[in-house]
Amino acid sequence: MKLWDKGISIDKKIENFTVGNDRELDMHIAKYDITASKAHAKMLGKVEILTSEEVKDIVKELEKLQKQLEQGSFVIEEDFEDVHSKIEYELTKSLGDTGKKIHTARSRNDQVLVAMQLYFKENLQEIYGKTESLIDVLLGLAEEHQEKVLPGYTHLQVAMPSSFGLWFSAYAELLIDDLYLLDAGLKIVDQNPLGSAAGYGSSFPIDREFTTKELGFSTMKYNVVAAQMSRGKSERTVTSNIASLANTLSRFAMDICLYMSQNFHFITFPDELTTGSSIMPHKKNPDVFELIRGKCNKLQAIANEMILITNNLPSGYHRDFQLIKENSIYAVENIKEILDVFTHSIALIRVKEVDLTDEKYKYLFTVDSINDLVMQGKSFREAYKEIGGQVQEGTYTPAASKKHSHTGSKDNLALDEITRKKNSAKDF
Amino acid sequence: MKLWDKGISIDKKIENFTVGNDRELDMHIAKYDITASKAHAKMLGKVEILTSEEVKDIVKELEKLQKQLEQGSFVIEEDFEDVHSKIEYELTKSLGDTGKKIHTARSRNDQVLVAMQLYFKENLQEIYGKTESLIDVLLGLAEEHQEKVLPGYTHLQVAMPSSFGLWFSAYAELLIDDLYLLDAGLKIVDQNPLGSAAGYGSSFPIDREFTTKELGFSTMKYNVVAAQMSRGKSERTVTSNIASLANTLSRFAMDICLYMSQNFHFITFPDELTTGSSIMPHKKNPDVFELIRGKCNKLQAIANEMILITNNLPSGYHRDFQLIKENSIYAVENIKEILDVFTHSIALIRVKEVDLTDEKYKYLFTVDSINDLVMQGKSFREAYKEIGGQVQEGTYTPAASKKHSHTGSKDNLALDEITRKKNSAKDF
Amino acid sequence: MKLWDKGISIDKKIENFTVGNDRELDMHIAKYDITASKAHAKMLGKVEILTSEEVKDIVKELEKLQKQLEQGSFVIEEDFEDVHSKIEYELTKSLGDTGKKIHTARSRNDQVLVAMQLYFKENLQEIYGKTESLIDVLLGLAEEHQEKVLPGYTHLQVAMPSSFGLWFSAYAELLIDDLYLLDAGLKIVDQNPLGSAAGYGSSFPIDREFTTKELGFSTMKYNVVAAQMSRGKSERTVTSNIASLANTLSRFAMDICLYMSQNFHFITFPDELTTGSSIMPHKKNPDVFELIRGKCNKLQAIANEMILITNNLPSGYHRDFQLIKENSIYAVENIKEILDVFTHSIALIRVKEVDLTDEKYKYLFTVDSINDLVMQGKSFREAYKEIGGQVQEGTYTPAASKKHSHTGSKDNLALDEITRKKNSAKDF
Amino acid sequence: MKLWDKGISIDKKIENFTVGNDRELDMHIAKYDITASKAHAKMLGKVEILTSEEVKDIVKELEKLQKQLEQGSFVIEEDFEDVHSKIEYELTKSLGDTGKKIHTARSRNDQVLVAMQLYFKENLQEIYGKTESLIDVLLGLAEEHQEKVLPGYTHLQVAMPSSFGLWFSAYAELLIDDLYLLDAGLKIVDQNPLGSAAGYGSSFPIDREFTTKELGFSTMKYNVVAAQMSRGKSERTVTSNIASLANTLSRFAMDICLYMSQNFHFITFPDELTTGSSIMPHKKNPDVFELIRGKCNKLQAIANEMILITNNLPSGYHRDFQLIKENSIYAVENIKEILDVFTHSIALIRVKEVDLTDEKYKYLFTVDSINDLVMQGKSFREAYKEIGGQVQEGTYTPAASKKHSHTGSKDNLALDEITRKKNSAKDF
Repeated sequence: MKLWDKGISIDKKIENFTVGNDRELDMHIAKYDITASKAHAKMLGKVEILTSEEVKDIVKELEKLQKQLEQGSFVIEEDFEDVHSKIEYELTKSLGDTGKKIHTARSRNDQVLVAMQLYFKENLQEIYGKTESLIDVLLGLAEEHQEKVLPGYTHLQVAMPSSFGLWFSAYAELLIDDLYLLDAGLKIVDQNPLGSAAGYGSSFPIDREFTTKELGFSTMKYNVVAAQMSRGKSERTVTSNIASLANTLSRFAMDICLYMSQNFHFITFPDELTTGSSIMPHKKNPDVFELIRGKCNKLQAIANEMILITNNLPSGYHRDFQLIKENSIYAVENIKEILDVFTHSIALIRVKEVDLTDEKYKYLFTVDSINDLVMQGKSFREAYKEIGGQVQEGTYTPAASKKHSHTGSKDNLALDEITRKKNSAKDF
Repeated sequence: MKLWDKGISIDKKIENFTVGNDRELDMHIAKYDITASKAHAKMLGKVEILTSEEVKDIVKELEKLQKQLEQGSFVIEEDFEDVHSKIEYELTKSLGDTGKKIHTARSRNDQVLVAMQLYFKENLQEIYGKTESLIDVLLGLAEEHQEKVLPGYTHLQVAMPSSFGLWFSAYAELLIDDLYLLDAGLKIVDQNPLGSAAGYGSSFPIDREFTTKELGFSTMKYNVVAAQMSRGKSERTVTSNIASLANTLSRFAMDICLYMSQNFHFITFPDELTTGSSIMPHKKNPDVFELIRGKCNKLQAIANEMILITNNLPSGYHRDFQLIKENSIYAVENIKEILDVFTHSIALIRVKEVDLTDEKYKYLFTVDSINDLVMQGKSFREAYKEIGGQVQEGTYTPAASKKHSHTGSKDNLALDEITRKKNSAKDF
Repeated sequence: MKLWDKGISIDKKIENFTVGNDRELDMHIAKYDITASKAHAKMLGKVEILTSEEVKDIVKELEKLQKQLEQGSFVIEEDFEDVHSKIEYELTKSLGDTGKKIHTARSRNDQVLVAMQLYFKENLQEIYGKTESLIDVLLGLAEEHQEKVLPGYTHLQVAMPSSFGLWFSAYAELLIDDLYLLDAGLKIVDQNPLGSAAGYGSSFPIDREFTTKELGFSTMKYNVVAAQMSRGKSERTVTSNIASLANTLSRFAMDICLYMSQNFHFITFPDELTTGSSIMPHKKNPDVFELIRGKCNKLQAIANEMILITNNLPSGYHRDFQLIKENSIYAVENIKEILDVFTHSIALIRVKEVDLTDEKYKYLFTVDSINDLVMQGKSFREAYKEIGGQVQEGTYTPAASKKHSHTGSKDNLALDEITRKKNSAKDF
Repeated sequence: MKLWDKGISIDKKIENFTVGNDRELDMHIAKYDITASKAHAKMLGKVEILTSEEVKDIVKELEKLQKQLEQGSFVIEEDFEDVHSKIEYELTKSLGDTGKKIHTARSRNDQVLVAMQLYFKENLQEIYGKTESLIDVLLGLAEEHQEKVLPGYTHLQVAMPSSFGLWFSAYAELLIDDLYLLDAGLKIVDQNPLGSAAGYGSSFPIDREFTTKELGFSTMKYNVVAAQMSRGKSERTVTSNIASLANTLSRFAMDICLYMSQNFHFITFPDELTTGSSIMPHKKNPDVFELIRGKCNKLQAIANEMILITNNLPSGYHRDFQLIKENSIYAVENIKEILDVFTHSIALIRVKEVDLTDEKYKYLFTVDSINDLVMQGKSFREAYKEIGGQVQEGTYTPAASKKHSHTGSKDNLALDEITRKKNSAKDF
């Protein structure tokens, strides 16, 4: 059932080795292959390689498959090595010779390329939207809890006063940086590779401007060799941008797991978000956030894997590129799930009252004490010495907590400015 | 000479362990620390923590240091653990108590942060410019050599006709994708962190809008915790974006090394760009391009290192972050050198006449032959079968090479469109 | 159906997120969980926590499950989150209260740990054996083709004469290094963790020496905290050792793909090991070896992923560790498949006659020419200069190929010594 | 001053790019190059390529250089690209033609290879010894503090009782696993590559058995192509084995930093091991352990970098391999420093009395309570339910802490067995 079969039987073990799990993965890109095939057929009509009748038939047939897909009845049977063979088989079964003509002026290479670019484009936009939603939830939590204090740590040592408001909105603002990267990723995948065939174009007088417009791409990857080489570059970019987002979420999850420990006791979650132990009946473990952390860390490993697979390969397609489809789809599907679970779960957080007068938090206020002296005229270094002396002799008494007035400080969170920054990040 | 020294002597071995090579690295950021200190002093004047006299004195003194730096006479002596101690020491030596006041309302943390952001910003702009220059050189080579043929390979097997024009301009167009990422990186570093102090702001009534404007940042990192956490995020982003650029250059260098092999013999370089062997007198090795490839591959490893160092650390500063300064500076300085060497060297390339009538290139034209049959009315699949049969029986004779007309193909390189795309990428 | 269920319903989406694909993965470790459960039950009998009747019943029931597994009728239904719940459920269903007692003095943690150690141990031994077989095949090929010349390259430039004998046996000898690492990995996994419970042992008077002996472990991980922390360390070691093996195979596959190119034309494979193209009827692509290369490169990425997931986590179990099960099993199963396919395929290689008198290989013999002069009394540096001069002036004529006599050279392959080295590597 | 200089001037910028920091790095391998050169000269004498007079002169001259090295007066001047040119230059300066003969029957390739193997071998042995010393210190601390309790955590949640004895000896036992890997690494580097020349051997009748014995290698890398390809494999193995050790130390350092936090407060260190803050006078930050953690995490990144540089390169030397010298030397030198600092610092730890009756540690004892019920005859699952019910209703009262009797538990640390395991690990 392989289109390139030269009539020579291939050992089953080798076949499994080469086909891998393409059938399963390709369910994610079937939709985009159908869309791109329709555009390709219409273009072949426009340049008169197909008759308008042939185009009509092919498009109609592709739309039937599209409907099957939407209804869940589209299946890639074991006979097919991938979705592309399956679709071409269906066209040929229904339309005979006309069906066979769909592969004119394209190759499996640009067929996969264009489907992946469409998949990435739609999904990066979706991931962008989900990230924006999470930012909104965090800004809401920051506003809600802005008065509640938290000890601030450096080196895991008690350092200076912080607040839940600062904590929630810090991650919100950091996620805006991830939006910038997603946006750059979108620019990279929003370029039509169709028409590059096996990476060297073809002698057919195809109209690449037509398919670019038909498929809604902002531009095309003009150079056919560049189009072929975008295989790999798109995947590395997409997974690397997802990794940046994952890094932000992973660090947030680490804070959450730590703050849930009895030794911090800053936050809890309702029982449905915690997990028990097979031997300790008292446990309420933060498994959801540990798995968010772990899965996000896994996502951060993928860009490196992509590089390892594609590195030092001369230009031109190599079969190795097939292997990067799996992990880029994995990254896309996982980050969407993680964003959903995170946004759902963080909204259920329960924030504790933290008693900063506890002995262990006593030195949180030394900097405020120094600053008092400075405002009374001492140089910073002298004031530092004086308060430092009190600390060493054990005579230090904490100053009353002070309001911090400057932009972005605990008592002036600048949530509106952060929202504005988020809104102006969008560029598509 | 450490500012935080509590009068307790620390074993020398431990000191070396903790100070590392900061003095050497800090020469790269001295300039930015001086600039940021000037802005900080002016701001302290504006909010009346310093008198205008004090500000004047501090600024004057900083400008002296700036001049020393430009003249090459600025040295960070062994007594100092970093550039920040050195500068503060100089201010205090010259100005006494006034000098000590520069550290009011800031911490070593935001001092390093703002210097690094300024360093990254200026250097990403420079890298962007150098990348544009390389693109221009490549587009020039593509135009110059557009008529010269090359065999195109897939799977390292002879596949379809290509050209030097396609080859050069493919890398040019791929580099535009790297510009998009550099641009996103610029957005991420172009945010003022100054005023975040140790990561929790301060009780001083500082004016962060003032320093943002004074330092030429587009915006600030509002939230002080986010500002602190941009340590790590900036470095990961910058090195990851540099890695994408390095990946493009590395693959190009691989092509070059392969094409210089006697078994391909497509290109050569003048003797000053090749290297001999200690035992083989005939060797002209492509060391420059091998080192470009190797160094670019090294650069691709750095973002992963950054993640390994910072991953799973709870929020708040940890000393571990000191370790990412070295490799982010390494990445920046190296990619600049690589871009210079690449741009210089590629311009000296000598392109050979490749004889596509050689027996080993015979099957380059099978697709053109098929396409001929298709244009005569056969379906693609039938034509494929016919030519395939000829190949297997050994009766295939190559078609005469055909002009390819579509956009981005070997005979229609679309160099103007690629140039336009490059020009419209710039967003700063 | 979760054993730790506290009666609180958990949202389905969260459940999918936390359970992941454990059911599927656990089919690989079911066998080992049954084995370890039998040993645990017997030990509980020995220390009189279970009666001998109870032990007999449990063991009998476990052996039934073992039989189901061998016959392919063992299934982990959707109701169970993993194989451990499934097995405990079956015991309880058959044996009532007695079945529930199997979990006495163990935790899910050490239950997973011991099953994974057994899985790794058996599989590393299998991988070791497959690697030895591949070495034998390569040594056989080296012997068979020892007379056949090959050009040797450095920097991808024609350098000095080599041979197929050298090429095949080089990889054989390199694989012996991988055996050393597999052996070290075996030492690390061959330590019984059972009895460490949740990582802090238990107040039951269990007999860990008994289970160590019963399960055939060479020693135990004594310290219970160390036993728990071997989760992660075992996985990192196993995947890192597999990666070393994969690296050797990947480089070999790269050579193969390159040498199959028309521009080298040193080897071919029968049609059943090559693949066609959807548009180029002449193509015989080395997909099998490209996929070996790509899959081996993917395997080299896994150890880094492991580190990213587990790094900077304080001691004690975290749910993140669940995520490293998947990729360590993936690595084990894949390398076994790769070794099978490689060993099968390399045996089918067809070696070409390479004509070293071809113009492009002319300078292969310059070192031999120099050596002739040295043996006639010139210093090496002078002889180098003389032959170098001939090369530059175009007057160099190749010396007749010389026999190389020293150990390990092309005409003295030392295959027996390499075989002896391989045989003495085995240490288990 | 380059030996292969063909008289063509090379642009300075390019030269800096290609030479890199070899001069500085080579100071680490100068000693080994001298040793190997002596052995090579003696062998040339034995096979009568050099006269015994020439051998005597060369060896004498090399021993002079060796003395300079020991006295610190050996310098690689800027004129030389590396230590190898420098040494050959010195020989030629002193001995004229005789000096030039040292390069007979070797190449720069096997010269670097053999020096690196000797460097790795000696250093792995040293690292092995330092690791053993650290294990001994930790076992001593475990014994000293075996009675002192600690809460045990899983998921960062209070779980079950642990102890300082368990904590210290856990890391001791984990380090034994790292010894196994170091030992495998030693086997891989303990193979003589000298005589492989540029990777294809030579036509000289050299005696590789002689140099193998003279240099104290256990065996040789027989196949000359394999010998050349050990470049890269040795570096990957060494850095990967160091990474495993670094992983153990990094996780230990994480525990230390966490346990020093005021929220845990389990340990402290004397002031000379803590660091202050430029703005917070009360801070005693664990910078030493944070830097150990960070540096160990950096070390874990290096093996991946090695793979990225060498991956997918066909067999035969490429200049890229020069770049892996730097980071493998970096890894070796750093881990030695880290081991010294760690061993020195951990010995100064001050262990606190932890009050397990504190409310937050109340549930540490639920498993002991369950076990009591089990020993009274209940099934584990029923006992779990009963205690779980008490916890949920708030009626649970902790059982008195129980002695744990089994091997490796908190009250039976098996330190002697662990020591025995460590001692029997050594295999060289």
